[in-house]
Amino acid sequence: MTRFALTIEYDGRPFMGWQHQAHGPSVQQAIEDAARRILGEDVLVYAAGRTDAGVHALAMRAHVDVERPIGAFRLMEGLNAVLRPQPVAVLDCVEVAGDWHARFACTARHYEYRIRSRRAPLTLELGRAWRIANPLDAEAMAAGARQLIGRHDFTTFRSTHCQADSPLRTLDRLEVVREGELIRIFASARSFLHHQVRSMVGCLALVGQEKWTPDDIGEALAARDRAALGLNAPAEGLYFVAADYPA
Amino acid sequence: MTRFALTIEYDGRPFMGWQHQAHGPSVQQAIEDAARRILGEDVLVYAAGRTDAGVHALAMRAHVDVERPIGAFRLMEGLNAVLRPQPVAVLDCVEVAGDWHARFACTARHYEYRIRSRRAPLTLELGRAWRIANPLDAEAMAAGARQLIGRHDFTTFRSTHCQADSPLRTLDRLEVVREGELIRIFASARSFLHHQVRSMVGCLALVGQEKWTPDDIGEALAARDRAALGLNAPAEGLYFVAADYPA
Repeated sequence: MTRFALTIEYDGRPFMGWQHQAHGPSVQQAIEDAARRILGEDVLVYAAGRTDAGVHALAMRAHVDVERPIGAFRLMEGLNAVLRPQPVAVLDCVEVAGDWHARFACTARHYEYRIRSRRAPLTLELGRAWRIANPLDAEAMAAGARQLIGRHDFTTFRSTHCQADSPLRTLDRLEVVREGELIRIFASARSFLHHQVRSMVGCLALVGQEKWTPDDIGEALAARDRAALGLNAPAEGLYFVAADYPA
Repeated sequence: MTRFALTIEYDGRPFMGWQHQAHGPSVQQAIEDAARRILGEDVLVYAAGRTDAGVHALAMRAHVDVERPIGAFRLMEGLNAVLRPQPVAVLDCVEVAGDWHARFACTARHYEYRIRSRRAPLTLELGRAWRIANPLDAEAMAAGARQLIGRHDFTTFRSTHCQADSPLRTLDRLEVVREGELIRIFASARSFLHHQVRSMVGCLALVGQEKWTPDDIGEALAARDRAALGLNAPAEGLYFVAADYPA
């Protein structure tokens, strides 16, 4: 048995999310099906994060245990050949110790959320960003974001379907950067609650449109009540960017 | 009669190119059809550049003459509403003088060509960049590119279907910039020959893979012979980025 660590890029649009779903295709299933075709054995793929339907990944980390002897490079090339034309690609594949775990060993997860601030509909970025037609005040959004950094009870910013034991999380980074019409929001934490990034971004978008003040973000947080949430941002702007592991 | 200048963004994948084609959809036709639905009149749209099938635009410039009284903002909003879900959007629309011409008044055209230098197939960038699996030497590509800058007979880098009277063109910029796995090639000139950017990029890719030396670019140019062309790069990596006009 050999354990391989995979780095995976995908366009989330055709998928119901990372995890197996009874009612539609998942990224996990696509990779497991490809592995079965190459290896002739059933495998399970574990990922650092279970992204929702429509969420993209630039470098999802995952691992898989393989019985049949095969080199890392051949496994990667085989997976990529079989995965086509689905928009899933294995960027890297390395052999790791049998106790390395993509989910449980992960010490930090990094997401980016992309907003396009413009009136015109999206063309090249359709399904890859959230278009907001109203003008956005990125400075106010940054001020709102700073109220969320640190260790807090994030009940307000957590899906009612979240299965985590505790609503306490430590948010290490929530940065708002404007590049022309593009507004990039960078979020980092050891782990996130279900829908946490999208819920935080949704409220920041209200601040950007001056429907909320930056202080309303702090009040929503203090409420510890999902009903205090202003808005959950759509999945299409969210990217899983990177995961950290001990050296 | 009012003349409007349009700034247009499009994803080139579903189109046979900018210009009307008997055998498939074109961007020009999509905009003219949308205008007819809004205005109830037939119009012709003239663009700064006639991009090929699969080539994208971030800010194509064009103009259209309209009989019916309508404001620029209403025309833009109407076009965008009717163009959906096609990946074409009008980013800007302004009234201009009746002698302003998107093609003939244009003093410079700017293109970008995007290469992804990696083994893995593309997912999010599929149809938006040229993937080259072999490693690329961007320094050597930049050295090759410098041999093309200036006023030259570009017969080697011109499609046999090119309808321009002269093969002489002045290339003002051909710059190669590496950003991780992405190699961006910026090309600027008053005007380009048919397939000129793709032909130059194709040969630079040979230099990057060490199949050609930088000096081979100069020799191909000096040959003034289409048969001396090494490779024509695929359309999918090419973007029309901007057009300049007198103030």
